[in-house]
Amino acid sequence: MRILLSNVGSTSLKYRLLEMDGEATLAQGRVERVGSQKGSLNHQAAGKPGVERELHVPDYAAAVKLAIDLLRDPEVGAVADLDDIAAVGFKVVHGGPVSGSALLDEKVLQALADFTPIAPAHNPPYIQAIRIFQRLLPGKPLVGVFETAFHRTLPEEAFLYSVPYEWYERYGVRRYGFHGASHRYVAERTAAILARPLEELKIVTCHLGGSSSLCAVKGGHSIDTSMGFSLQAGVPMTNRHGDIDAWIVPYMVEKAGLTLEEVKQALAKGSGLLGLSGLSGDVRDLEEAAAAGHKRAALALNVFAYQVKKYIGAYAAALGGLDAVAFAGGIGERGVAMRRRICQGLDFLGIALDPSRDEAQGQEAIVSPPGAWVAVLVVPTNEEIVVARETVKVIGGNA
Amino acid sequence: MRILLSNVGSTSLKYRLLEMDGEATLAQGRVERVGSQKGSLNHQAAGKPGVERELHVPDYAAAVKLAIDLLRDPEVGAVADLDDIAAVGFKVVHGGPVSGSALLDEKVLQALADFTPIAPAHNPPYIQAIRIFQRLLPGKPLVGVFETAFHRTLPEEAFLYSVPYEWYERYGVRRYGFHGASHRYVAERTAAILARPLEELKIVTCHLGGSSSLCAVKGGHSIDTSMGFSLQAGVPMTNRHGDIDAWIVPYMVEKAGLTLEEVKQALAKGSGLLGLSGLSGDVRDLEEAAAAGHKRAALALNVFAYQVKKYIGAYAAALGGLDAVAFAGGIGERGVAMRRRICQGLDFLGIALDPSRDEAQGQEAIVSPPGAWVAVLVVPTNEEIVVARETVKVIGGNA
Repeated sequence: MRILLSNVGSTSLKYRLLEMDGEATLAQGRVERVGSQKGSLNHQAAGKPGVERELHVPDYAAAVKLAIDLLRDPEVGAVADLDDIAAVGFKVVHGGPVSGSALLDEKVLQALADFTPIAPAHNPPYIQAIRIFQRLLPGKPLVGVFETAFHRTLPEEAFLYSVPYEWYERYGVRRYGFHGASHRYVAERTAAILARPLEELKIVTCHLGGSSSLCAVKGGHSIDTSMGFSLQAGVPMTNRHGDIDAWIVPYMVEKAGLTLEEVKQALAKGSGLLGLSGLSGDVRDLEEAAAAGHKRAALALNVFAYQVKKYIGAYAAALGGLDAVAFAGGIGERGVAMRRRICQGLDFLGIALDPSRDEAQGQEAIVSPPGAWVAVLVVPTNEEIVVARETVKVIGGNA
Repeated sequence: MRILLSNVGSTSLKYRLLEMDGEATLAQGRVERVGSQKGSLNHQAAGKPGVERELHVPDYAAAVKLAIDLLRDPEVGAVADLDDIAAVGFKVVHGGPVSGSALLDEKVLQALADFTPIAPAHNPPYIQAIRIFQRLLPGKPLVGVFETAFHRTLPEEAFLYSVPYEWYERYGVRRYGFHGASHRYVAERTAAILARPLEELKIVTCHLGGSSSLCAVKGGHSIDTSMGFSLQAGVPMTNRHGDIDAWIVPYMVEKAGLTLEEVKQALAKGSGLLGLSGLSGDVRDLEEAAAAGHKRAALALNVFAYQVKKYIGAYAAALGGLDAVAFAGGIGERGVAMRRRICQGLDFLGIALDPSRDEAQGQEAIVSPPGAWVAVLVVPTNEEIVVARETVKVIGGNA
């Protein structure tokens, strides 16, 4: 069974065609800078010549059409007929109480629209892309795997905020959590790498990248996670704020004369590592600048490491102990210095890095000393494979 | 030297006159239900007959005048002349960047007014009371000891939010923290009870009551605390919200059609334990109701315990280990069941309660087993004594 995965950005489209028997990639590609005169296209099917060119892709519909045409192209494609694609899977973001994995029907699309106000950067491009796939591949099952799905096991005391209970009942105000496919994948791989049953493990998974969250995983189930009602909560992101005192919002309206919309914009786009440093939201840039003496770059790195460290401590308490900490995402997989910053001073929890192993980058590795009380791992994440497997389940197929 | 302490509520005035040489109470009293036809007065000077009566106290100025008249009354008072009172000390709440201990001049009063929007329940009664004392005791030094003072040692990574840095520079948006006098007192007593130097200790102080916060105290200095820019952040309070995702604020405006002011009211008065349970914000009421099967009462207790537990874990990580956890405040000092809930599952941190000692209520006690890795203590707090000592310092006196 072949599953097409579509990864949707605001001006980019990535796709991957997987043969689920063996989970091999048959083809993958990306269209970037959609709408710009200087768009680009990369496409590669297994055993076929690759395609790489600059071109004008006027809109998102053109990008999707381009991908579909390449996939069934006799020279460079991977399927003879679109019927060979069983379904298209999307890692959708925020549908509030609508979660899990589901066929993308009108009810699900409505839920995405309903929660656009608190996922302004994430939901709209998905809604748009799904509409285009519906039009260009009529009748093809389109499946959404929600980023919130893995966190549906949160207990009430972890998902409820101490606001009027009616806000939860009537308006769905609660912690949802995101990056679910990643946290699930990383937890499962952690158990596999340690050759221990997932059911017995207490793991903190750290998905740290442009967008970051941590998750407390007990026996394979998410019991708490740092993102919340929105994708802006938790640890600081590239340009999103992380945990703040909610009274900053009305204060900036009343004191600084901003509109509520302007405050939201500043929180969603001008905050996080970028807002703190005034320089960049990218940890690599900040490390370079900090080394050259840029004080606010160093400050932003300190804040990030400190917040992650506190979450690890909080989740150890939530889990009642700790067997493993796993790092994933761009920073988690490659940020050797940041991992060291985060783990420093956590030896009282049994967390330590082995200097002879902790430079691992981009590959599965145990980076704690042999026999350590808590295993620290690097686990490159693979959200797509989770989405693909869930898509198979939803359409009732056998891979 | 005699110091008068004034504790200001929205409809109550408590006062205590201390002889700082020996820190003995010379007189204390309270006027309650100011403005109501059924006000009440309690007053007791050492070695004098007590006064207890119901009466109409029309306004706050009348309450202050009543207290002053009783203090110098030949029959029931404690001073022959008001000149015998060296200064009046106030535990003032939120002056933003204006903190520490200071004479209450116009600059300080202006700072209190500036931060009223984010301390709406706390600042206005103090401003009013201070104005009245200024009028009734002209020339008498009035000293404010800010609740934020103890937290001025927070490092940048703990006090900065990941919002645009300009919000900090221009508008004072940062973590301030409160209950400073209490956290300081409890940390100092913890060291004394353990007979260890405060400089060497890593302590989490838990001030849990109608208003709650935790503090990470390293070597006697606050390095992090759970309240933030406002007094509403951190763990849930009686009716204030604790930590929430800031995007709930604009969401409730946009989705539920509330005004920003209505959202603030709901967060400041209808949230916390009251909002969750729909019943009461008092842990004693909730424990009774939960025992009788009230589900949301049980839920509110679970949320509270869980949030406190996570903060203890987070602060252990921030401190790089833990020597002691100290409970203070109404819940911390008397809530035997709640302390057990909080500590449950934290044995991996070395935190445990000794069933033969942990029923201690309202008195200093070590409630962890002898020889435990982390000492758990009950420490009845005494904010007034900290305020009195600071007041002496500000007026340059020797107790």
